[in-house]
Amino acid sequence: MSNALTRTQLWGTLFQDEEVAAEFSADRFCARMVQFETAWTRALRDAGAVPDEIADEALAAIERFEPDFAALARGSDVDGLPLPALVRQMKAALREEARAAIHAGATSQDVIDTAMILTVRAVLAIFKSRCDAILRRLDDLDARFAGNPISGRTRMQLALPINAGDRIEDWRTPMRARRERLDLLIDEIGVVQAGGAVGLRDAPAGCAETVAAGVARMLGLRVSPVWHTDRAVMLEIGHWLTALCGTLGKIGQDIALMAQQGIDEVRLEQAGGSSAMPHKQNPVRSEILVALARVVGGHQGILAQSMIHEQERSGAAWAVEWMTLPAMLELSGAALDNADRLLGQIRHIGTEKGG
Amino acid sequence: MSNALTRTQLWGTLFQDEEVAAEFSADRFCARMVQFETAWTRALRDAGAVPDEIADEALAAIERFEPDFAALARGSDVDGLPLPALVRQMKAALREEARAAIHAGATSQDVIDTAMILTVRAVLAIFKSRCDAILRRLDDLDARFAGNPISGRTRMQLALPINAGDRIEDWRTPMRARRERLDLLIDEIGVVQAGGAVGLRDAPAGCAETVAAGVARMLGLRVSPVWHTDRAVMLEIGHWLTALCGTLGKIGQDIALMAQQGIDEVRLEQAGGSSAMPHKQNPVRSEILVALARVVGGHQGILAQSMIHEQERSGAAWAVEWMTLPAMLELSGAALDNADRLLGQIRHIGTEKGG
Amino acid sequence: MSNALTRTQLWGTLFQDEEVAAEFSADRFCARMVQFETAWTRALRDAGAVPDEIADEALAAIERFEPDFAALARGSDVDGLPLPALVRQMKAALREEARAAIHAGATSQDVIDTAMILTVRAVLAIFKSRCDAILRRLDDLDARFAGNPISGRTRMQLALPINAGDRIEDWRTPMRARRERLDLLIDEIGVVQAGGAVGLRDAPAGCAETVAAGVARMLGLRVSPVWHTDRAVMLEIGHWLTALCGTLGKIGQDIALMAQQGIDEVRLEQAGGSSAMPHKQNPVRSEILVALARVVGGHQGILAQSMIHEQERSGAAWAVEWMTLPAMLELSGAALDNADRLLGQIRHIGTEKGG
Amino acid sequence: MSNALTRTQLWGTLFQDEEVAAEFSADRFCARMVQFETAWTRALRDAGAVPDEIADEALAAIERFEPDFAALARGSDVDGLPLPALVRQMKAALREEARAAIHAGATSQDVIDTAMILTVRAVLAIFKSRCDAILRRLDDLDARFAGNPISGRTRMQLALPINAGDRIEDWRTPMRARRERLDLLIDEIGVVQAGGAVGLRDAPAGCAETVAAGVARMLGLRVSPVWHTDRAVMLEIGHWLTALCGTLGKIGQDIALMAQQGIDEVRLEQAGGSSAMPHKQNPVRSEILVALARVVGGHQGILAQSMIHEQERSGAAWAVEWMTLPAMLELSGAALDNADRLLGQIRHIGTEKGG
Repeated sequence: MSNALTRTQLWGTLFQDEEVAAEFSADRFCARMVQFETAWTRALRDAGAVPDEIADEALAAIERFEPDFAALARGSDVDGLPLPALVRQMKAALREEARAAIHAGATSQDVIDTAMILTVRAVLAIFKSRCDAILRRLDDLDARFAGNPISGRTRMQLALPINAGDRIEDWRTPMRARRERLDLLIDEIGVVQAGGAVGLRDAPAGCAETVAAGVARMLGLRVSPVWHTDRAVMLEIGHWLTALCGTLGKIGQDIALMAQQGIDEVRLEQAGGSSAMPHKQNPVRSEILVALARVVGGHQGILAQSMIHEQERSGAAWAVEWMTLPAMLELSGAALDNADRLLGQIRHIGTEKGG
Repeated sequence: MSNALTRTQLWGTLFQDEEVAAEFSADRFCARMVQFETAWTRALRDAGAVPDEIADEALAAIERFEPDFAALARGSDVDGLPLPALVRQMKAALREEARAAIHAGATSQDVIDTAMILTVRAVLAIFKSRCDAILRRLDDLDARFAGNPISGRTRMQLALPINAGDRIEDWRTPMRARRERLDLLIDEIGVVQAGGAVGLRDAPAGCAETVAAGVARMLGLRVSPVWHTDRAVMLEIGHWLTALCGTLGKIGQDIALMAQQGIDEVRLEQAGGSSAMPHKQNPVRSEILVALARVVGGHQGILAQSMIHEQERSGAAWAVEWMTLPAMLELSGAALDNADRLLGQIRHIGTEKGG
Repeated sequence: MSNALTRTQLWGTLFQDEEVAAEFSADRFCARMVQFETAWTRALRDAGAVPDEIADEALAAIERFEPDFAALARGSDVDGLPLPALVRQMKAALREEARAAIHAGATSQDVIDTAMILTVRAVLAIFKSRCDAILRRLDDLDARFAGNPISGRTRMQLALPINAGDRIEDWRTPMRARRERLDLLIDEIGVVQAGGAVGLRDAPAGCAETVAAGVARMLGLRVSPVWHTDRAVMLEIGHWLTALCGTLGKIGQDIALMAQQGIDEVRLEQAGGSSAMPHKQNPVRSEILVALARVVGGHQGILAQSMIHEQERSGAAWAVEWMTLPAMLELSGAALDNADRLLGQIRHIGTEKGG
Repeated sequence: MSNALTRTQLWGTLFQDEEVAAEFSADRFCARMVQFETAWTRALRDAGAVPDEIADEALAAIERFEPDFAALARGSDVDGLPLPALVRQMKAALREEARAAIHAGATSQDVIDTAMILTVRAVLAIFKSRCDAILRRLDDLDARFAGNPISGRTRMQLALPINAGDRIEDWRTPMRARRERLDLLIDEIGVVQAGGAVGLRDAPAGCAETVAAGVARMLGLRVSPVWHTDRAVMLEIGHWLTALCGTLGKIGQDIALMAQQGIDEVRLEQAGGSSAMPHKQNPVRSEILVALARVVGGHQGILAQSMIHEQERSGAAWAVEWMTLPAMLELSGAALDNADRLLGQIRHIGTEKGG
């Protein structure tokens, strides 16, 4: 997702996020795989595993490299992933002797997992500023409406009167917690994948750790134990997205409830209309936030299935990740965008009846 | 899904299905919404709710109508769905008097649900022939290898010797059952949505049932009680897809297990390679089938959340459907395609060791 | 579920259902397994696979048989299921010659799957009358309040005025559809499991089909192709439960929304209190219905994982069923009970303000 | 879960965990709620909100208090939770004047959430030693078999030879990571709930923060912002359980694959038998581990739904937690137990063929 329907213009930006999707485009994702291979070749050279001039020749070729995407597609159809075809393409421009300077000791999973981490970090960097923007919106709402009375409700029933600021605080405190955790998450997941054919990090012989460390450094990542089959890093990303969307979904649910006629505790500008009843003002984005939270949260239960990663590499478990995590990221991006717009539509918080 | 990553060329056709995605394109989905409006206007005319010449004027305009997709996107961003903007666009070319011949008595949900049903039926028609193709593949495998001995295994352990034909029967019997159910499903879900603003099917006054019946007939659908808030029809579609993908996933899992060296009960042609170990032959599509089954199956647990449809129409529950069902359909299409190709790669079934 | 917490008295009957749980008790479930073995021995005799006097001796012993549950527990800890120990216990009282009259040609899965089907049918029979009771409640509410005006709401916003009867119809029509489907479901799932060691239904040689047919007839079931590895039957049960709970969850959600002060469209008797605010009247069971619908619906996404059933029998996939389906049934039972009580608490439907 | 079926003796200990279940028994869970109330009354006294002698009178009564569980059940049936009835019972033995010393300023959610945290921490303390035991098992297997060759496999196909120690390391490294995280988790979740009627922590007036801090200190917890509606703490617990069970499921999946005849890389003692084929040796607990991982992981997608917590307290979202989290904990306990037993059954790791 966004899927074949929700990514059309028919649904506008409600369920898609161009900025996030762009990070997963063939161009950028491929560029990150090439970035890994560049760092790998440099690290091979620096570790003395490949002669300098051979490595430099290879690096020059990589710099000029332009992927043939149609051939990558054909390669994936056979191999299950684009790497073998990509490596072949990269080597094709090189003399036989220089080919050993590319990908030597690495495996597809090293490249794809690392490119995925770089991509996720790029997306999460976007999310940092979006979270900040939402927090500013909440600060602003608090500044404007904090003192207005509304009804505190528990179990959907009147409990005690509270102020708008109390409700806003119920939104802001979790958002701040998610935002603080995001910094840690970005750091935590900044690990290179470098395990080689069966995850032993033993190639090239004698300098595998040096190469791994060099690659990590060049990509701004850390070295950790090989995580080919321990997908807790990916699960952690999904977990944060689930918590984030849940937090935004709670805001959406509250606003949808507050906007009910009869409750009338929030007034929105430019809320949506109806084809049958042009007078209606629907708090569209609040409902979308609820829907996104349910969908992203449910995806975490699917992503969890990828933890059962048989032997040294599971094509099945890995594919579950590919289908799930980019979807969760794009939908989370859409949730942040919907939340930002929804909060920006608020013209008033506070009981309006009897005004 | 396929998501921003898996729909790139980088992953070839593994997780996407162009034919299914095309049915959800803006063009076709919009065309189906217009098809509903056309039928609606005709039905209004036939029921005498709109004078013939007014209706015909409107129908002529609809026929010439070309949607402005960018404006629909902007409309959805405000309204949460493209309908109000679409209706405005359709009416824009008409004289004031003729505008009442369009959408009168209908609501957004009537149009979108009906367009969704038409789209799903178009996709399921594709699936019919794909299921048939898979059944022919299984018949063919049975004809070629039925008598070859393999090991029956339960709980992943040797049980008793069986023949390849017995294992193939374990794949074919459920596929036949899914295929038979598909005919019933296509029939079952062939219901128009026609409820009007709050689902009462009471407009236009005096002829609402006639109009609904007319629309249904023109679209090749049946009339049923209004199902604005009873989403069992959509759940039923997801349920069949779950069963289908589970059945294909079982085939994939079996083939992956049979292809293990040491078991050697299936030989595949043109199985995938490895970037680190060019000698490897990976049964790629068998693993993809397992992954697709897990992901589609998990989605059914998300789609189920859309059953809780508050009041006369829930934007939140409805949006869960939009995010979920098209994804399930495309991934199911990919599963059928993967299965067809995988079965086509089989060169031998039967124990190969020790000749 | 109900889990270790929710099955305590602390949560009363909210999340548990004694009547459903009793059908899954060791006593009854074991009795159904023994019922299968009894039918099997009789069928062996009737088919001439075992001499009459040997079979009758075995049947007499089975009739007197009392399981040693502690030994069954020890058996399951080793074997993964109670059957091997149960068969050993049943045979222990018999002379060597008579032992062949028990379980000959059957396998654990035949017994457990069949006992599960019998159990599910017993539970669904309970649900039939509960659905009927709920439909009577709805008829009664309709009779009392149909004409009272309430606000039709779409996307949680005022749409057009409707009558209470319209809202009730939104609850009753789906309930009737679920109820009608239930009769078909009970019929549909009434299939014996009889496949033998590796699902070939080939033992005892020469009369396996006869034995299967005899067992089915004695248990009030039909014969179908062996479904050891096609779990669509179980998925179908979960699907109906998901639809049912979704339907009840929609009723719950509506009532929770109608009961909000400011909306005031439903009045309940004996709604729940609060420890902090004794004056509060919480529409407790409406919220529980929503929660049960979400949980049961989510379970269907887990149950779907059991479709991927490797080779001739998967211990893993089968165990997913055991953990999931009885939970879904008990929670569905609780949902029916909650709905019945909630509808019984309704004292008024219709706008109350300004009256 | 364990559900009505899997908690019977019929399935032995495979899917249940008495030690975990005991922590959720009515006795212990109620004792923890009473523990909260005791701490609360003491904190009221220490803060001067209640005169010493009144508080001590109340404390003496609480100490003698024996809950009437049947009345709590009746209370939950009305109120949706046992707290109002529990507080009434506790107060019943007291003079009118002393009643104000109990629960004053607290709300049901404070008590139940805090009792849940205490219970979860008790369970996680059990898990600490179980994780350690599993790590010792892995150390032991490593010491015995590390040097034995096995086949490294990727995508279920032969890749390169590895040693048993390499595979064991693939199990041990994630287990160590989960174990290390567990210490942090136990610390992280150690937060009292103390928000009062609508989560403002404003009662008793003037000393609410002091009372909250006192209660936290007495219960060995920390004070944090009120988290009535931010359920990230609960989600975090489920997340760790998901990662743990995934890690154990991977071990189970690997062992099931290694135990296949034809692969023969692990030999187990006392593996399970079959009712139809007494010679079979089924690696039962490895399959159970896979099943538990899938079920617990899927539950996380359900638990995520509880993040959408409307207004000041959602009975629906909260109930999703009650149904989900205790189940996840018990099943995780069962997974740890199964893993411990499975690893203890291993007699050999390493290729055995042709030996």
